[in-house]
Amino acid sequence: MNAARKILKLDRPFEMHRGGTLQGVEIAYETWGDPAHRGDNAILIFTGLTPSAHAASSESDPSPGWWEDMIGPGRPIDTRRFFVICVNSLGSPFGSTSPVSINPATGRAYRLTFPVLTVEDIAHAGHEVVVSLGIEKLLAVVGPSLGGMTVLAYCALFPGAARSVVSISAAARSLPFAIALRSLQREIIRRDSAWREGDYAADAIPVEGMRLARKLGMITYRSAKEWGLRFGRERADLQRRPGDPFGIDFEVESYLENHAEKFTGQYDPNCYLYISRAMDLFDLADHGGSVNEALRRFTVERALVIGVETDLLFPIEQQQELAEGLAAGGREVTFVRLPSLQGHDSFLVDMDRFRPVIAEFLGSM
Amino acid sequence: MNAARKILKLDRPFEMHRGGTLQGVEIAYETWGDPAHRGDNAILIFTGLTPSAHAASSESDPSPGWWEDMIGPGRPIDTRRFFVICVNSLGSPFGSTSPVSINPATGRAYRLTFPVLTVEDIAHAGHEVVVSLGIEKLLAVVGPSLGGMTVLAYCALFPGAARSVVSISAAARSLPFAIALRSLQREIIRRDSAWREGDYAADAIPVEGMRLARKLGMITYRSAKEWGLRFGRERADLQRRPGDPFGIDFEVESYLENHAEKFTGQYDPNCYLYISRAMDLFDLADHGGSVNEALRRFTVERALVIGVETDLLFPIEQQQELAEGLAAGGREVTFVRLPSLQGHDSFLVDMDRFRPVIAEFLGSM
Repeated sequence: MNAARKILKLDRPFEMHRGGTLQGVEIAYETWGDPAHRGDNAILIFTGLTPSAHAASSESDPSPGWWEDMIGPGRPIDTRRFFVICVNSLGSPFGSTSPVSINPATGRAYRLTFPVLTVEDIAHAGHEVVVSLGIEKLLAVVGPSLGGMTVLAYCALFPGAARSVVSISAAARSLPFAIALRSLQREIIRRDSAWREGDYAADAIPVEGMRLARKLGMITYRSAKEWGLRFGRERADLQRRPGDPFGIDFEVESYLENHAEKFTGQYDPNCYLYISRAMDLFDLADHGGSVNEALRRFTVERALVIGVETDLLFPIEQQQELAEGLAAGGREVTFVRLPSLQGHDSFLVDMDRFRPVIAEFLGSM
Repeated sequence: MNAARKILKLDRPFEMHRGGTLQGVEIAYETWGDPAHRGDNAILIFTGLTPSAHAASSESDPSPGWWEDMIGPGRPIDTRRFFVICVNSLGSPFGSTSPVSINPATGRAYRLTFPVLTVEDIAHAGHEVVVSLGIEKLLAVVGPSLGGMTVLAYCALFPGAARSVVSISAAARSLPFAIALRSLQREIIRRDSAWREGDYAADAIPVEGMRLARKLGMITYRSAKEWGLRFGRERADLQRRPGDPFGIDFEVESYLENHAEKFTGQYDPNCYLYISRAMDLFDLADHGGSVNEALRRFTVERALVIGVETDLLFPIEQQQELAEGLAAGGREVTFVRLPSLQGHDSFLVDMDRFRPVIAEFLGSM
């Protein structure tokens, strides 16, 4: 269901942050609510690694979005009051130009000829949508995970473009532990012989590599504590294949298997590799010489920084770094440290904790 | 160099804990120092997942052992005073009977026909060595990681066999987070087409699978904090292959690559699968109905439990559970909580913290 999807098509070349140019770039997005005069009530949302622009349901697409509980009439991002835009990341396969798109110069899909993708490019593409909608200054730019990195890039690249910023479980840059985990996920995909250096057929994608990489992702998106409480040592409710001494014994293994199966096939492997790498490459210090100097240059009036204590990928210390750097720069900062058990994924799951924090911040804007 | 390796060959069948019988079992071990009367000064060491029995150098094998800094004259496990035995785990490829051994009934390697391996079997094999050496009661049974699980199994299976126990970075059972990580490592190996359901040739082992599984292991053996301090965002000192957008950029990626390369080929994949699974299956609660009841039944006089605060695989709470359970059972318990940065691997690396703790405990025995 893509009935709510809008496409902005750029008629001028799109210069990539680390070099290279894309022609005829398309950026997919969805909107909810109505824009006020000059877009004073506009909120721009960037997504995490894999979601589409379908953040919430609407009349034209009633299927639930990835942040359904957060966006809508009476919800924290209240569509009766706000004009809400969610952008599909450049490089993502859900409507925006990406490695699966046709390169107009060759008539063939970009695949690995796509230029190096950065978080800055994703922010830039989002900004094109904002400008095309006639919005002069956003009320807020909001993003979780990769989306949180993207809002930081957005503030660095486009001073004066937003009155406030909401960074959720993000980081000024990736630390080696997170880089190592993502690097391994990418290598697992690339070592799948079906990957064929990115040249797989649409009906023969590297399914095994994607499935294993997804499992690794899922392990790191949650927390050991949550899984201990949730699964304990419960045994999986299925018959072991005879002669398979390494099949599924435990409930946690069965859970990972089921969820990885669902994901595989829904996401293009080359797009995954590009966006995953963009997260590693991002470093806010590139925009000022140091993270603190980059944050000092932000022009937003207010900032909300939310972090989760059990987050393995973007640990709470990285949230604190953002909050402190913004405060040192004279911004009015709200730093919220949540004790959610669901680790990095908490913003998708622990809605009872996240909703009031975001509602209060936006309600006071 | 296996010059120091001794082999105990059992002339009676070895009954496996979860069923099945092995004939002609061999158990590799090394010893240091001299046994006192009835072995009153004997210390038995079990190893982690991959090491051999070569825990320290000796005259017959001067190459450094895996715990070289811990064992020797004047070292915490002082070979001038103690008679030290280190056992190669049953199921490990370094001399003990394992999936690479020839099944005398068929004349062919066991491979996946090896029965389910458990931590109890590893403990049992170690006990056979102790009995064969004429030791009536060990001064101490010591083990880190899997070795720590094995000392727990040893105490549960052989009441009265040891005066004291030293459990290092171990656990009464594996929690779902650790199970998920090991399960994924095993799946990565099994999905390598070279694995061939365990039927690979000696010169065509599933190298890629082992390399990727090893990388995942290495990521989880250390801590995010250590890597942050050690690697930061340092770039790798090597030329990127042109046309490879996903090669090595960061120092941490280069480090993992180099270390995984070293490991691969040194360890038999089927053995790895069996021992890894044994760690998942272990549950001390099987020996008493609950972990606490199992610990209450221990007959040791004293226990030393060491845990590391940054350990991702066997978190400090699991060390505390052991210490509290042993204390509740009336044992004299020393619980040491170390702030080492090196995570689960600290017992191999942070010797300045580990040595005095072990020296003091054994010195007072």
